[in-house]
Formats: sequence, C-alpha cells, structure tokens
Amino acid sequence: MATSADHARLSLNQITTNRWSLAEALEGCLRAELPAIGIWRHKIAEVGLAESRRLVRQSGLQVSSVCRGGMFPAATAAERAERIDDNRRAIDEAAELGAGTVALVCGPPPDRDIAGARRMVEDAIAQLVPYARERNIAMAIEPLHPMYAAERSCITSLEEANALAEKFDPATVGIIVDVYHVWWDAMLEREVARARGRILGFHLSDWQVPTTDMLMGRGMMGDGCIDLHRMRTLVEAAGYQGYHEVEILNQRIWDAPGDEVLALMKERYRSCVLNKPSPALAKATAPARIT
Amino acid sequence: MATSADHARLSLNQITTNRWSLAEALEGCLRAELPAIGIWRHKIAEVGLAESRRLVRQSGLQVSSVCRGGMFPAATAAERAERIDDNRRAIDEAAELGAGTVALVCGPPPDRDIAGARRMVEDAIAQLVPYARERNIAMAIEPLHPMYAAERSCITSLEEANALAEKFDPATVGIIVDVYHVWWDAMLEREVARARGRILGFHLSDWQVPTTDMLMGRGMMGDGCIDLHRMRTLVEAAGYQGYHEVEILNQRIWDAPGDEVLALMKERYRSCVLNKPSPALAKATAPARIT
Repeated sequence: MATSADHARLSLNQITTNRWSLAEALEGCLRAELPAIGIWRHKIAEVGLAESRRLVRQSGLQVSSVCRGGMFPAATAAERAERIDDNRRAIDEAAELGAGTVALVCGPPPDRDIAGARRMVEDAIAQLVPYARERNIAMAIEPLHPMYAAERSCITSLEEANALAEKFDPATVGIIVDVYHVWWDAMLEREVARARGRILGFHLSDWQVPTTDMLMGRGMMGDGCIDLHRMRTLVEAAGYQGYHEVEILNQRIWDAPGDEVLALMKERYRSCVLNKPSPALAKATAPARIT
Repeated sequence: MATSADHARLSLNQITTNRWSLAEALEGCLRAELPAIGIWRHKIAEVGLAESRRLVRQSGLQVSSVCRGGMFPAATAAERAERIDDNRRAIDEAAELGAGTVALVCGPPPDRDIAGARRMVEDAIAQLVPYARERNIAMAIEPLHPMYAAERSCITSLEEANALAEKFDPATVGIIVDVYHVWWDAMLEREVARARGRILGFHLSDWQVPTTDMLMGRGMMGDGCIDLHRMRTLVEAAGYQGYHEVEILNQRIWDAPGDEVLALMKERYRSCVLNKPSPALAKATAPARIT
C-alpha cells in the first residue's frame, strides 16, 4: 500500500469520523493512504464481528486498537462480573480483528468512594490477565482527564496508570498516552519516561481555548494549546514505536465530510506533531478549516 | 460573638454569595454566626480599601483569605512586571484587612509552553517573597483543577504545588487544598501529608454528577461525589487548624437569597464535612434545596 513516510505511523481512531460506518472508515483510510485504524466496538456491533473481520482483512489496514474495554467499578458483585464478561468479549473482538490492544476506559466510581473504585479496577484487570494473555492481547489503561473522574474514569493521571500497570506483566498490561488527557501534568516527562516498555498507544487531538464542552470540545491538532511535537518527542524518547491515533470528539468535525477531515488531519499531523510549530496559540476564532 | 462549636472553623468565601456586597456579606455572616469570611478583591474595589477595612473591623469577623493574587505568566516582561505589581497590591490589601493569606490562582500559559509558564510563576513568587514577608502575609498557591490549565492556572496538582512551595520559606509560601480542584487525585493522601506545615487554606464545595458547566458547575457540599469528610480528615491529620472556606461558583446558588445559602451551607457542613454521610451519591436530580 502506498503510504508516504510522513504518515507511516498515523492512524484514524474512527470516532473522529463518527458518521462513517466501519466499511466507510476503512475506505476513507485507504483513500487517504493511512496505514491503520482504531476501531470502536459499537461500529463492530453494527455489522457483526465476522463481517468486521472480513472488511478489515480486505482493506489490508492494521488495527491499532479496539476501543473500548473497562468500566469496571459497579455497586454490586454481579454487575462487576458482567463488566468483566463484557471485557472478555472486547478481548475476543481485538483478537479476531488482529488488533494487539484493547483500550481501557476504566470507569467512574459508583459512589463517593473513589479509592474503592480504584481497587475494583485493579481486581478486574487481574481477573482478565490470564484471558488476555492466552489470546495475545494487551490491555492498555488509558488515564482520562481528571474532569472525567466522576463520569468516565477513576484513573486520572499517568502516575496512577503507571503504578497500576506496574503490578502486571508488561506483555499484557500497559498504558495509553492521550495528549488531551495528560497534557496539563507537570510530571509528564517523569511519568512518560517511567512508562518505557509499557506504552501501548499514543492518541492525538488538541485542547481548545476556550473549551466550552467537556465531552465534545476536543480540537483538531493545531487548534489548541497542547505542545504536540513535545508530546510525540517524549513518547518516542521512551521507546514508543507504535501508531499515532487521532481521536477527536467534536460535533463540528463529525459533521464535516470524512475525506476533508482526513486531509486536514494529515496536514496538521505534519505541521504540529512531526514538526514543531510556533508556540503561539492559534486565535480562538480560527478553528480547523473544515467547511 | 456567639458561634456554635460546630461552625468554629467555617468561613464564607464571599464568591458563594456573589450578589452580596462586602457589607452585606459581613452582615450575613454575623446573622449566621459564622466566625470568618474570605474576601474577593473586586468586592474590596467596589467600596475602597479604607471602607473595607472599617467594615471588617466593625464586624469583628476574621478574614480567612484575600482572593486572589497570581495570574503571573504573560508574553512580555512588561506584562509580567505589571502582574507582580498587582500582586503587591493584593498583599497590601490582605495586610490592611488583617488577612494572613493571599490565595494565588497562578495563571494560564500565554502560549503552548506550559513549562515556561511554570517558570514564570516561580520567578514571580520569588520576586514577591520579600515584600510579603515584610508585611507578614503568606502567599497560598492554589492548584486548580486540570480542566483550568489553559485558562486559569498552569499549576494543576497538589504534587506540583508542593514542589513549588517547598522552594520557599513556609512562613511566606504555602498551598491551599480546595476539594473541587484536587479530589480526583490518586496521590491525594501522599501530597496532603507532604504539605504539613504549609497548608494555608481548605476550600469546600462539591463536584456535581453530571457536571455540565466547567466554571459555574460547582455544587453545594453533599450535592456531588466528593468524600468531603475524608478530605477534612486528611488536612487535619496533616496538622491544618485553619478555616474551612466554602467557595461555590454556581448561578443557581448565586440567585438564591444569601441567608438561605448560608443556612444550607451550615447544615451541609455538619452533615457532610464534620460527619460522614452515606457513600451513596445524591440523585443527580436532587440539587441543594434552595428555592
């Protein structure tokens, strides 16, 4: 497949083009000459796992991750067991699609006991390790931005994700560095370096200034304040050689034609991630040039 | 002044009753038999410093803090010098009102270089230390929630605030523990313990679930998911004996009659901060009983 060297590590996390079906996203990646895609489970469910597998194989694309497992904490043991079962299915899907990694969004606390929720996450991962190991799938703990602590993930920093991952074999449990979730962290350099040998994914987007929507406010690379070039340099200095997945939740980008989104994504990847742009922020009034 | 033992450490940060002038807030605190108030500079500016001083002295209330100094990073040396001048005025105001502490909201980066912004914060505090020491005022670095990193403060965690504060004499530079900003932190216990001797303030509110407004979404204690009793226990175990300031930015609370807000605040302080409530979350549809 013809892929320019510039984009040899670029992957489309398909939530970025959320209107596309799996088939459409695969075709879009091929047109854009991207080598890989990150696939969401609700997109797999739309066509079924067998057809998803056929489509992926036919495309020749690599699957950089399956999104997402996790959501472990729950109020009752029965609910927690159900969540673990669901994660076994996520591991099966990753194995079937040839993805090496399942991204874990670990889940919010069911009550005010966030320390208790964290223990539930650790317990669940421990229970899943043998199942994942047998299928040669790694689970990637993705620390989410602390603003999601109450609604999406009680795992909120690289330090915490590292401390948790270090309790397990690095062949089976690692972490994802998503720039949106960790850019604010003063201990970024220390914790990315500490994650050497455990970094299973690197996710790209940008933090818009101002941000007015906590969930759907992510920006295209270059439209925010994150020093993406530095982030890439840090994960590569820590030995990471995997894909760079672009994962953007933003209604305006979702509403744009997918091919335009991919073209802009490639351009911004070159100008803001591979190369170092001026440190000056884009004007808040100058969003991504998407129609 | 008659103050029940239950509320001997309770202070109203006056942003919680933002419609009240300084005089009204002082009168409200007296009616509610609170011992202290945290005063904002824009409220001082409304009546002038001399009149503010007269009102505070006449009330007999303690001033738990002056909010806020900080906002140090800026693109040019001239702007940074202006910010430092403004902080000298904040220190003067704190001294004049008998407050021991100026809360520092350290400010956002002017560009993509957040590490550079952090150096500007350290440089500014270093420049202000002699001025603050002469006037017997302590500067309290308040780490803000990471979701404010791009717009309000590049200092985003207790660990970072501790590391910064430790570069200075604890008589002049300490930190504020605001539950809203730090509750998500897995390293909370370690960092609160580390702050022993440097904790200059303890701020209360709650994290509402869901949170839909990043700035104005703070909740009354008990309306969210923070284990406030545990937070209080941690700061007291670290030796903190100062005031517990209630600081809530929430339009619905601002729109409520101030006396009702203070009555609810006292009730929730007893039930959720002094005592340990059930860990179960209040239903998202059951906000504070304010008319």
